[in-house]
Amino acid sequence: MSKIARLIIASGESSPDMRYAAGFSTPDEFIWFEANGDAGVICSPLEFSRAVKQARPGVTVHTEAEFGGPDRIDMLKNLAARLRVQGFLVPPEFPLLWADRLREAGLAVRAADGTYFPEREFKSAQEVEKVVESQRAAEAGVRRAFDVLRESRITSEGLIEWRGGILTSEMLRSEIDIAMVRLGMEPTGTICAGGAQGAQPHNTGSGPLPANWPIVMDIFPRSAATGYWGDLTRTVVKGKASDLVKKAFDAVLAARELGKSLVKVGADPAEIHNAAARSMERAGFHTGRSGEADFGFFHGLGHGVGLDIHEAPRLSPRNRVPLRGGEIVTVEPGLYYPEWGGIRLEDLMFVEPGGAGRCLTEVETFLEID
Amino acid sequence: MSKIARLIIASGESSPDMRYAAGFSTPDEFIWFEANGDAGVICSPLEFSRAVKQARPGVTVHTEAEFGGPDRIDMLKNLAARLRVQGFLVPPEFPLLWADRLREAGLAVRAADGTYFPEREFKSAQEVEKVVESQRAAEAGVRRAFDVLRESRITSEGLIEWRGGILTSEMLRSEIDIAMVRLGMEPTGTICAGGAQGAQPHNTGSGPLPANWPIVMDIFPRSAATGYWGDLTRTVVKGKASDLVKKAFDAVLAARELGKSLVKVGADPAEIHNAAARSMERAGFHTGRSGEADFGFFHGLGHGVGLDIHEAPRLSPRNRVPLRGGEIVTVEPGLYYPEWGGIRLEDLMFVEPGGAGRCLTEVETFLEID
Repeated sequence: MSKIARLIIASGESSPDMRYAAGFSTPDEFIWFEANGDAGVICSPLEFSRAVKQARPGVTVHTEAEFGGPDRIDMLKNLAARLRVQGFLVPPEFPLLWADRLREAGLAVRAADGTYFPEREFKSAQEVEKVVESQRAAEAGVRRAFDVLRESRITSEGLIEWRGGILTSEMLRSEIDIAMVRLGMEPTGTICAGGAQGAQPHNTGSGPLPANWPIVMDIFPRSAATGYWGDLTRTVVKGKASDLVKKAFDAVLAARELGKSLVKVGADPAEIHNAAARSMERAGFHTGRSGEADFGFFHGLGHGVGLDIHEAPRLSPRNRVPLRGGEIVTVEPGLYYPEWGGIRLEDLMFVEPGGAGRCLTEVETFLEID
Repeated sequence: MSKIARLIIASGESSPDMRYAAGFSTPDEFIWFEANGDAGVICSPLEFSRAVKQARPGVTVHTEAEFGGPDRIDMLKNLAARLRVQGFLVPPEFPLLWADRLREAGLAVRAADGTYFPEREFKSAQEVEKVVESQRAAEAGVRRAFDVLRESRITSEGLIEWRGGILTSEMLRSEIDIAMVRLGMEPTGTICAGGAQGAQPHNTGSGPLPANWPIVMDIFPRSAATGYWGDLTRTVVKGKASDLVKKAFDAVLAARELGKSLVKVGADPAEIHNAAARSMERAGFHTGRSGEADFGFFHGLGHGVGLDIHEAPRLSPRNRVPLRGGEIVTVEPGLYYPEWGGIRLEDLMFVEPGGAGRCLTEVETFLEID
């Protein structure tokens, strides 16, 4: 096949691959390329000085003018000529319009089928530190929520009163997010879903939170400085949980601990998922569909976390590639029943190279808050 | 040409077009389509109930099973057959891998060249309200910064002391972001750049802030609930500004007010930009390049704001399409000199259908804080 270079056109903000490749983040799109082991970026005047300061070692920073810019197709034709390549290998999500324009200009463009940087799956010690920093912020967020719920009281209507008002999902989320913003995080989409809302794993929650029923809190901040994410879920009840909810909580907790114990070098992700699923099934919690609503355990057990909140490897029935060491994955079994809500408990695991899993989460797991 | 349908594959979180088309936001990708005036979405079980509740009126919610899912190419082939179309018109940033797979499956895929929903440029009354809500949050953020700077004092080293510590960009940003999180916003990338850092328009700022030199605060929150953005920039000096900085501030303020006065139905965006640029040039502030560093005024005067923070129309020398009414645009002239820093002042304007511009920003503009 003809000679090709690697090419990304993206902003650092929206593309974890770009942030990984270039070593810095930008609000606007720029160009990264690599050929024969030489990597470079082509930046507009607005990004140039940031790029010079922050580029990953080994990445050369070029101006648009060096490649006859600012017209992008002109620049990329000049780039291909200078690199002596006939085309580009790009990430799967490369913008179609630019691909088609490059093809019209006579250059080959091929999208990678799968992960563009497979090495992103395996974290360096520095990367683990960055994820842990974001994870500590997530823990500060959930501890703030615990405090709010401890300070609050249950009203005669079965709602939760805090500082003289009825506590809503929005208020609890705001308290969690503020704790994380203080630590330099960018929270987006923090879930605080109470009662039946918690039965939908992606429902972020709205309105008054119920007492005596589960509140699912799924917290995933990204560090503004590093771009790395944390991911943490706890489920609590303000007041007293029903026996059924207690039993579901115990089943999810047991499945999580089982799943965590299986995360190690050589383990089959599908097997880890299936073992956790079986353990909840054996505890009496069934999975199925009623009309359009799923119930039971109907999502993957976990996913990689790094510069993206959901990345490889998945702990899902479809992933049979053994863990190699260096991965960071969530283990987050859940049980969801539209009649009463959901329970999800999520810890973060690092697969120690050459060994077992190490839990990166340091916050207690419990159900009831008085 | 053969019959085609419109198609988007994206998450609501990452794609303003998807949020606009579907009426709701999701963390995961889903499918939106439109043919012959009928629009629909195809959602995974995880998103189905959210979609049913929140979909824009007129958008039918389908399950993946209806189209033979979850395999995406199978679903899209079935969709094309059911709609009796030979292919799809997709947004410019449609993922190349999916486009090429659809083409391999015999379907035509064409990327829109330019804006996918030109109507997004022209805001309904409800959309204006949503932008204003986010703008009010940005104002709460900058007012918090004003308060922090008022409460602080200048140290003998020319730094700023607040609550017993040296005030940094990171601390001031955190205070601004917290004020906005309380109002349901998701802040990302808030700029607090002092001194020479302010000379780089995209530098978010880091480390101790200087007294007596400009601090650029560019604040652009997105509402978690609506997805609409606000955008606001103020530049202040804690202490006393030099005569040069005062003169630059006056020139930027005059350019902003001139630009705002020209925003109206029928106006040529390039002319608005050029008028603001000329007024700063006439005030004695020149634009140029020294080595790799630009100085003076070297970005566009403004941009549209809505479900995207930077959208059409641009107020730039290259946009000669007259304003039609309904647009929301920023007017944000700036002056940047590496020797001392930058001044940028940004207000938000609504182009009243059939009339003049109306300023949507309600916070004072001033330079010095004692």
